[in-house]
Amino acid sequence: MINRKNVQLGTVRSCIRELFEYGKKRKAEIGDENVFDFSIGNPSVPTPPEVNAAIKEIVETYDPVLLHGYTSAQGDFEVRKTLADYTNARFGTTLNANCFYLTCGAAASLTIVLNALMNSGDEIITFAPYFPEYRVFTEHAGGKLVAVKSEERTFHIDFKALEGAITAHTKGVIINSPNNPSGVVYTEEEIVKLAKILKKHSEKYGNPIYLIADEPYRELVYDRSIKVPYIMNYYEYSLVCYSYSKSLSLPGERIGYVGVYDKMPNFSEVYAAVCGAGRSLGFVCAPNLFQQLIKKVYNVTSDISIYKRNRDKLYSALTEYGFEVAKPDGAFYMFVKSPEKSAVDFCERAKKYEILIVPGNDFGCGGYARVSYCVAPEMLDRAIPAFEKLAESYGLKHC
Amino acid sequence: MINRKNVQLGTVRSCIRELFEYGKKRKAEIGDENVFDFSIGNPSVPTPPEVNAAIKEIVETYDPVLLHGYTSAQGDFEVRKTLADYTNARFGTTLNANCFYLTCGAAASLTIVLNALMNSGDEIITFAPYFPEYRVFTEHAGGKLVAVKSEERTFHIDFKALEGAITAHTKGVIINSPNNPSGVVYTEEEIVKLAKILKKHSEKYGNPIYLIADEPYRELVYDRSIKVPYIMNYYEYSLVCYSYSKSLSLPGERIGYVGVYDKMPNFSEVYAAVCGAGRSLGFVCAPNLFQQLIKKVYNVTSDISIYKRNRDKLYSALTEYGFEVAKPDGAFYMFVKSPEKSAVDFCERAKKYEILIVPGNDFGCGGYARVSYCVAPEMLDRAIPAFEKLAESYGLKHC
Repeated sequence: MINRKNVQLGTVRSCIRELFEYGKKRKAEIGDENVFDFSIGNPSVPTPPEVNAAIKEIVETYDPVLLHGYTSAQGDFEVRKTLADYTNARFGTTLNANCFYLTCGAAASLTIVLNALMNSGDEIITFAPYFPEYRVFTEHAGGKLVAVKSEERTFHIDFKALEGAITAHTKGVIINSPNNPSGVVYTEEEIVKLAKILKKHSEKYGNPIYLIADEPYRELVYDRSIKVPYIMNYYEYSLVCYSYSKSLSLPGERIGYVGVYDKMPNFSEVYAAVCGAGRSLGFVCAPNLFQQLIKKVYNVTSDISIYKRNRDKLYSALTEYGFEVAKPDGAFYMFVKSPEKSAVDFCERAKKYEILIVPGNDFGCGGYARVSYCVAPEMLDRAIPAFEKLAESYGLKHC
Repeated sequence: MINRKNVQLGTVRSCIRELFEYGKKRKAEIGDENVFDFSIGNPSVPTPPEVNAAIKEIVETYDPVLLHGYTSAQGDFEVRKTLADYTNARFGTTLNANCFYLTCGAAASLTIVLNALMNSGDEIITFAPYFPEYRVFTEHAGGKLVAVKSEERTFHIDFKALEGAITAHTKGVIINSPNNPSGVVYTEEEIVKLAKILKKHSEKYGNPIYLIADEPYRELVYDRSIKVPYIMNYYEYSLVCYSYSKSLSLPGERIGYVGVYDKMPNFSEVYAAVCGAGRSLGFVCAPNLFQQLIKKVYNVTSDISIYKRNRDKLYSALTEYGFEVAKPDGAFYMFVKSPEKSAVDFCERAKKYEILIVPGNDFGCGGYARVSYCVAPEMLDRAIPAFEKLAESYGLKHC
């Protein structure tokens, strides 16, 4: 008689969480150093020193009543202005403070945007592999998540599949680039093409299709040549969901924002709906101390050289051993093709070598497994021979 | 075509917010010291020194990767255990860590509980006057808020009205004691009677009616003789929504929790639904730094002697001038009977004396106005003669 859906969501542990618990047990049995846990996307690089220094300075120097008091529902004006100025300088936009809504992180940004835009029966398209909570968030907002397959092997957008999936009910498209779990970054050409298709279908159906960029990994790219296009520069009906969880190694602090493109023809209405959804969900006024922190460190990023080093080392080892992997340009995940049909069986076999990786099935993409390489470099180095043995067990190794 | 309800919620500014903006304008015109702003419930007492000291200590001594990393979805185990132990010592319960779910404050606690319990068409009862967002939260969860009038003048529960409002669709009852906006604290006798009625009707309809205590003001009571009964000691189907916003003067930091009574016959299912609702709404893992803070200062309260002093001074002045007021035992609000039929007109007239107070209509209770006395004592003292003139303008004053 209570809400069945939420009972189920709270009862069924995610596969990732199951694996994490298994890892803890296994470490207790055979020692931490003998288990190679690549299950969780929790940053291993500490927050940059500027962050804790700024927290201390804020606590020491701000009036405590103002510091810990309510800001306006959408966040402190000065903080939002800082975000607007920084975004404009970086991407050539002309946003202002009232285009931003501070949130408790990326999940909150997404639930706010989806509840702002959607009515019962609406559809949201995303590209598999995708972050599994997109389905939970979309369904809570009364809609349906439509997962469109990506191009084989590369995990770039399969435009034909996309066009086949758009209907009169399509309210929006979520992209996540750099991507969890594939690490793929969409190119400028790709975003231009995506924008063109969305515009065409918006006109066809007489309703805008919103483009929602889920960007917790924006700052995590490993080559200078890789650019992550800013969607507002390509498409009118654009919303950006940002989080500082990965860029500042603050996943537990829940701070991020929604940015609404000021050139959207119905901007005022959409921004109002974002504010309204924040109220409905119980999300007004993101934690003030972290709002003030962002004002000070908005342009700082954790030292991601460790992730790059891990990526390079793991990618060259896995490909050398004969695994098929799309080289990840960003985020801290690698999506490895399963050498056998079932990725679940592949991940089970990996366990025999004490390697913990997650089947792609959870990300709407069977036949692959996700390796989270945001781990200590020493652990990664110790794991390399285990990956080699895993490859040998399938007879993969090219030598 | 986007979500109309959320557009509307984001467009219509609350009456309180309107008045706050008016106050800012008026202060610029005639000087801060000449405007008596009693519109907002924002604590004026600074956070206790233990809070900022603990934040600094945590930032200086904790491993930053762990400190700013994810906790489990429901919150750090040690933090939840601390809450359980403290609650047990204080109220004689036998809760454990897994009865608690850490949240981003009271609003989040309520939306999580309502989404956990409710299905479309369910009804939630509360007692007028009530916090207006209860309606927003209930409707977002697919249900209907049924506001039951309280006893005239005292604002205690009108049990006859309550019994008349319970139907087969009643999923729960929200109580808020100490109350915003009346300041009333429900007595033990009252909670016993409420529990009896809810039990009777639960049995009659064959479905439990949940009792939800919204407790941001629990620590704000001004006489030792006043006890705020802990609902779990009186009723099986109890959930407590707590926030540290007022007790620690941290309203902008959004930290609180949901407590689920372990003796509830369907406890596991309800706790799972709370976890599931947290996922659906995008609320997993409350801000970690503030979780760790709570572990250190769970038993600290701001210096509320200023609120008590304000209450005593304002109550004796208002009653001396002939206003009718229920003496508030807690929170930091006074609910004053309008000397004319329309509370809106009363509040408009108060503006002529530069007094900003909120019509009770917003709280589902016309004919009264809310005075928030969580203000600087000097401002309150300066306002007393203005209240006297306001009383005189109605010919109220007994001399």
